[in-house]
Amino acid sequence: MQGIGTQNAKMSTLDLSLYLVLDPVLCGGRKGMVATAVAAAENGVTMIQLRAEAMEKREWYEAGLVLKEALTSYCIPLIVNDHVDVALAIDADGVHIGQNDLPAESVRAMIGTKKWLGLSVSNVGQMKTVPDVVDYLGVGPVYPTQSKRNAPPALGLGKLADLVSRKCLPAVAIGGITAETVGDVLRCGVEGIAVVSAICGQQNPAQATRALREKVDGA
Amino acid sequence: MQGIGTQNAKMSTLDLSLYLVLDPVLCGGRKGMVATAVAAAENGVTMIQLRAEAMEKREWYEAGLVLKEALTSYCIPLIVNDHVDVALAIDADGVHIGQNDLPAESVRAMIGTKKWLGLSVSNVGQMKTVPDVVDYLGVGPVYPTQSKRNAPPALGLGKLADLVSRKCLPAVAIGGITAETVGDVLRCGVEGIAVVSAICGQQNPAQATRALREKVDGA
Repeated sequence: MQGIGTQNAKMSTLDLSLYLVLDPVLCGGRKGMVATAVAAAENGVTMIQLRAEAMEKREWYEAGLVLKEALTSYCIPLIVNDHVDVALAIDADGVHIGQNDLPAESVRAMIGTKKWLGLSVSNVGQMKTVPDVVDYLGVGPVYPTQSKRNAPPALGLGKLADLVSRKCLPAVAIGGITAETVGDVLRCGVEGIAVVSAICGQQNPAQATRALREKVDGA
Repeated sequence: MQGIGTQNAKMSTLDLSLYLVLDPVLCGGRKGMVATAVAAAENGVTMIQLRAEAMEKREWYEAGLVLKEALTSYCIPLIVNDHVDVALAIDADGVHIGQNDLPAESVRAMIGTKKWLGLSVSNVGQMKTVPDVVDYLGVGPVYPTQSKRNAPPALGLGKLADLVSRKCLPAVAIGGITAETVGDVLRCGVEGIAVVSAICGQQNPAQATRALREKVDGA
């Protein structure tokens, strides 16, 4: 594997502080997706995940290649949601899976040790059974969200803090987080925040990213 | 890779004569899917493809493992539709992709040379650009079908014969084929027929398979 702008992203530190989940549809298509990714990369996001629930595999593949090319000069890992085959085909820097995806152990066997592997966790039962092949957790949704189909019910800050207190891996919180709530969420003990609509589809994604970055750095 | 009931399915001859595309939903769930696969295996199908458009990856994975186990004693390749990652995770005997899936070259790079790779073709343009990493073609739909979302318009026998005359690889015809039409379809020059609803969801899948097998053998 080759990281973006590095020979081996996995060798670098995992910086989850500001994690963008990039939704091409919310960004207004492929052009908007690339512009959003670049604006976010230039203004402080530390990881970018491609998540496109309605796209066919070929579109995933093409979007992934375009993104990878656009992000060449930024040292930001590109993660692919769910589809290990897409991640392998574009040589992404990692995969993020949910509880209904392939087992983490199978995914690790396919991607090897040099790509990141993230896992979504929404409750205590899932937290107790996190396989040790996983690198980081996505915990949420913190607040109600429209960005994901069939998302579990929102945790709220209390349950988030409880869940995070049981974690054994670095974690990023996700779900309806805005610049206004970044501080509250980070105080729950996560290493970072992940956002979709707080950047994707915003009139000025660069400015939106800077606003989030400032709150993350100030927390 | 290990074939089902063999050390290497790819070493054996590709027998496309009666190809079952197994839809778990049409079969009434996982139990029905397994029963249908076994009945079909015992009565003359030569290949089985798992295709489950609405299932999540974990369900694909589990269904694939269950199928593989159930088919251990039959020498019938198990092919996975679309998802190369599922095929790799369960060590299936091959992958079947469509025109909107990952590029065939990428798929071949992932699955190696010992797994089968099939590609769906619906028109002359697609036939002209079949990559040489592909092992066989699925050509159709011959007749209108309800078994596949967003299927292209039915070809009919005339266009099927024209398309098949341009093929450079073994091909199986698919789409609304029944025991009554097997002869007509095979006369178009394909090596075999693929069916979904002519077996899946039939009251007696064993009998349905035998009826198709007799027509194939008699053609």
